[in-house]
Amino acid sequence: MELTTQAIANLVGGKVEGDEKAKINTVAKIQEGEAGAIAFLANPKYENFIYETQATAVLVSETFEAKESISTTLIRVPDAYTAFGKLLTAYQQMTQMKKVGIEKPSFQASTSNWGEDVYLGAFSYVGENTLIGNNVKIYPNSYIGDNCRIDDDTIIYAGVKIYSNTKIGKNCVIHSGAVLGSDGFGFAPQKDGSFEAIPQIGNVVLEDNVSIGANAAIDCATMGSTLLKKGVKIDNLVQIAHNVQIGKNTVIAAQSGVSGSSEIGENCILAGQVGIVGHIKIADKVTIAAQSGVSKTYTKTGGNLLGSPANEHHQQIKNFVVMKNLSSLKKKVDDLDRKINSND
Amino acid sequence: MELTTQAIANLVGGKVEGDEKAKINTVAKIQEGEAGAIAFLANPKYENFIYETQATAVLVSETFEAKESISTTLIRVPDAYTAFGKLLTAYQQMTQMKKVGIEKPSFQASTSNWGEDVYLGAFSYVGENTLIGNNVKIYPNSYIGDNCRIDDDTIIYAGVKIYSNTKIGKNCVIHSGAVLGSDGFGFAPQKDGSFEAIPQIGNVVLEDNVSIGANAAIDCATMGSTLLKKGVKIDNLVQIAHNVQIGKNTVIAAQSGVSGSSEIGENCILAGQVGIVGHIKIADKVTIAAQSGVSKTYTKTGGNLLGSPANEHHQQIKNFVVMKNLSSLKKKVDDLDRKINSND
Amino acid sequence: MELTTQAIANLVGGKVEGDEKAKINTVAKIQEGEAGAIAFLANPKYENFIYETQATAVLVSETFEAKESISTTLIRVPDAYTAFGKLLTAYQQMTQMKKVGIEKPSFQASTSNWGEDVYLGAFSYVGENTLIGNNVKIYPNSYIGDNCRIDDDTIIYAGVKIYSNTKIGKNCVIHSGAVLGSDGFGFAPQKDGSFEAIPQIGNVVLEDNVSIGANAAIDCATMGSTLLKKGVKIDNLVQIAHNVQIGKNTVIAAQSGVSGSSEIGENCILAGQVGIVGHIKIADKVTIAAQSGVSKTYTKTGGNLLGSPANEHHQQIKNFVVMKNLSSLKKKVDDLDRKINSND
Repeated sequence: MELTTQAIANLVGGKVEGDEKAKINTVAKIQEGEAGAIAFLANPKYENFIYETQATAVLVSETFEAKESISTTLIRVPDAYTAFGKLLTAYQQMTQMKKVGIEKPSFQASTSNWGEDVYLGAFSYVGENTLIGNNVKIYPNSYIGDNCRIDDDTIIYAGVKIYSNTKIGKNCVIHSGAVLGSDGFGFAPQKDGSFEAIPQIGNVVLEDNVSIGANAAIDCATMGSTLLKKGVKIDNLVQIAHNVQIGKNTVIAAQSGVSGSSEIGENCILAGQVGIVGHIKIADKVTIAAQSGVSKTYTKTGGNLLGSPANEHHQQIKNFVVMKNLSSLKKKVDDLDRKINSND
Repeated sequence: MELTTQAIANLVGGKVEGDEKAKINTVAKIQEGEAGAIAFLANPKYENFIYETQATAVLVSETFEAKESISTTLIRVPDAYTAFGKLLTAYQQMTQMKKVGIEKPSFQASTSNWGEDVYLGAFSYVGENTLIGNNVKIYPNSYIGDNCRIDDDTIIYAGVKIYSNTKIGKNCVIHSGAVLGSDGFGFAPQKDGSFEAIPQIGNVVLEDNVSIGANAAIDCATMGSTLLKKGVKIDNLVQIAHNVQIGKNTVIAAQSGVSGSSEIGENCILAGQVGIVGHIKIADKVTIAAQSGVSKTYTKTGGNLLGSPANEHHQQIKNFVVMKNLSSLKKKVDDLDRKINSND
Repeated sequence: MELTTQAIANLVGGKVEGDEKAKINTVAKIQEGEAGAIAFLANPKYENFIYETQATAVLVSETFEAKESISTTLIRVPDAYTAFGKLLTAYQQMTQMKKVGIEKPSFQASTSNWGEDVYLGAFSYVGENTLIGNNVKIYPNSYIGDNCRIDDDTIIYAGVKIYSNTKIGKNCVIHSGAVLGSDGFGFAPQKDGSFEAIPQIGNVVLEDNVSIGANAAIDCATMGSTLLKKGVKIDNLVQIAHNVQIGKNTVIAAQSGVSGSSEIGENCILAGQVGIVGHIKIADKVTIAAQSGVSKTYTKTGGNLLGSPANEHHQQIKNFVVMKNLSSLKKKVDDLDRKINSND
């Protein structure tokens, strides 16, 4: 691509401050900018770079006030991060190969049903009675079982495995290696110490705009549905157990796990490697810090949890300060103890 | 399906208390029951629902004593959870498509050996000298290497990867994305700071009735076998390293990891996100709570561990109470310290 | 294979002490040795076994001094572990089937470019403009997108998924189920509480001699490259987020995760289930113990971290001693408090 700064400003709804005819042919991080590149400044931590960047142009907030002189051309926008996202999308569309059509060999069950402008990669499998919407892209080596539904504009990357009866909304993105609909981990203990599997006859339902990371695993419900509501974003290697419900726009970072039948509210953020036990509820807008373990229902909307076991964030930060030198606290107590005892 | 309550009672070995001719056509959770559905009550926490459920029938224990009047028909059984499992199995068999036969294209090495009533999904691969037992189901896009053996009635779901020389017993279930037999993580440090891979020439052996979750990873042994004994149940995203041995009927929940050469006893339960270091032993019937980290051999049969580092469960629960307000303990100590010092 | 102890000594650069003509036909652990087997002794913990092993020969260090009489033949080498590795490599080459050639059906885009002595397994896919070097082995059911480069002697095991634009050096090993190049987890929050995906237009670069474990996930960079330098070894189920850089010869054990834009130094060791937050740096030669959580930049070359949150290893070991009986510390403080108060 090659665009003028003015053309880019038009694209992202911004206003040029500097050379409107400067040519842009790539994107870069502000600290790595070079001639011909456009970068962005959103995080104040990176402000210093704007005074020395070699990037031809930088997207900045309308409210940004320079503390030193700036030689690069600015494009002012309401939100620099969002504008840069738009620009990247345009860049991606201009540079990426557009996949469409049916590659051979692939497997389309005779009772499956297909929308328009679909891409089906080689060695991908679509089972009986499955409905594929318009503009759905299924990359190679993916498996979609029987009685599934994949709605319009959803992308299934290579090597995804989707069990029978799974329903996926519009505009979802499922990354490679993700598994949707595997059996919930439910076993009935027998008298001899062995376990009998409880059949898992439910399914997985993803509403619209859900994103699932690479090698994530989402189990089907024992009965009913494991449900990820509109706009949920799941990172790589996350485990979602049977009958879990996740409220809309909740974000779950890598390697976190939610155990069976728990319900996470809307607009929550779970950082990486968090664990949630089974059969509990988390309120809306709750933030849970990395490596935390939550074992009880938490009802405080907008609350913050930290630690394993999880605690109120502000309290746990204080505890962590003490924990860091716990052996010196012990020493102090022992000193006091000796003193008191010698006073006896 | 449509069955009378009496037919269901016959199926699960129970006794009807109420309308023996009521028609059942689906299954449901007790809190979501509706006309035509059968539910179950096993966990006392859900007892309240039995007095108001709309389900036509409910499976309950022979010993259940109602505290209020009940309008639904009861089917009394020795164990409601197990009976419901049987019913779900029957439901599943009646509603699920029976897969059988060889879909094309698929890859069957000329020296591979096949039992009867096998299902081989499209794009699945079976290597040289591999033996596939009777009634084995291999879903699409799976890979089974050379010199493997998969015994009767085992199910391999879509996209499983089984390295050469793996042995899998009867009636096992391997969920999508699981990897069996990848190289153990063994490297010999070199003088220049680099590492040379130690060849891993062992294999993975699963005995009968083993279940492996989605995207779990089980490494082969350096020499000999990584061994999961009869009835072991492994959840999604679990890591089992090289030369590990897991005793029969042990259950390991999602995202736990067992490091190289460790041995876990029989009938243990590892909850989610547990870590076990290498070269240690865990006794039989040990329960390890979620997010615990075990770094030493633990010899107490029937013991309970909690925490990272792991501690006796009852002691760690007491510690956790203190930890929750550790900063107030610190304050108390500082107050005492000031008091003692001012007394000096 | 069948070789004399002298032939093996020649192979590994060692010196026979005992029967130079003894026949060796297999390898074994020293504690499981039997007639015809060769074992090794590197870890002093296993020394006792050398006095009673049934193995025909044992590889030992040149400096090993026997404390009792030994009946097995010794082969003395500079480093027993490395020598055994060489022997295993030779054993593996003699016993493993050599894969070469193009199995059908497989997918080779017309613009892809192929070296010599390549293996392409059935149902594997190689996209447009992708370069495959000499002696590359691609096992069945793998996917390699467009514009990739896989250099000489690299092994891609079954069911690996490699997104477009990924570059992989020479002599790398990628285990089954690993995903390289999935989108970084970057979303711009919108005013309505939803998130818009930030397009991820960067790639993944692995330098030479990198090893990636089963079901690991390595995201592409938002811009630029997620970079694993020469000799990096990544275990199963590890998460490497977008724009991470890992220094050469660093080893990361199973289920660890490194968050976005963090930089790990050279020759570091991350044990299992470690978490590293985003945007921080770890110095060279740092060791991080299992289940640790690192949330701040750590600049001490050769340092040791332990705990969540991470602390200096030696300090955290002392803290852990106190933590183990934290409730008794609390009791002591309460006793002191009562005593002081009653003294008032």
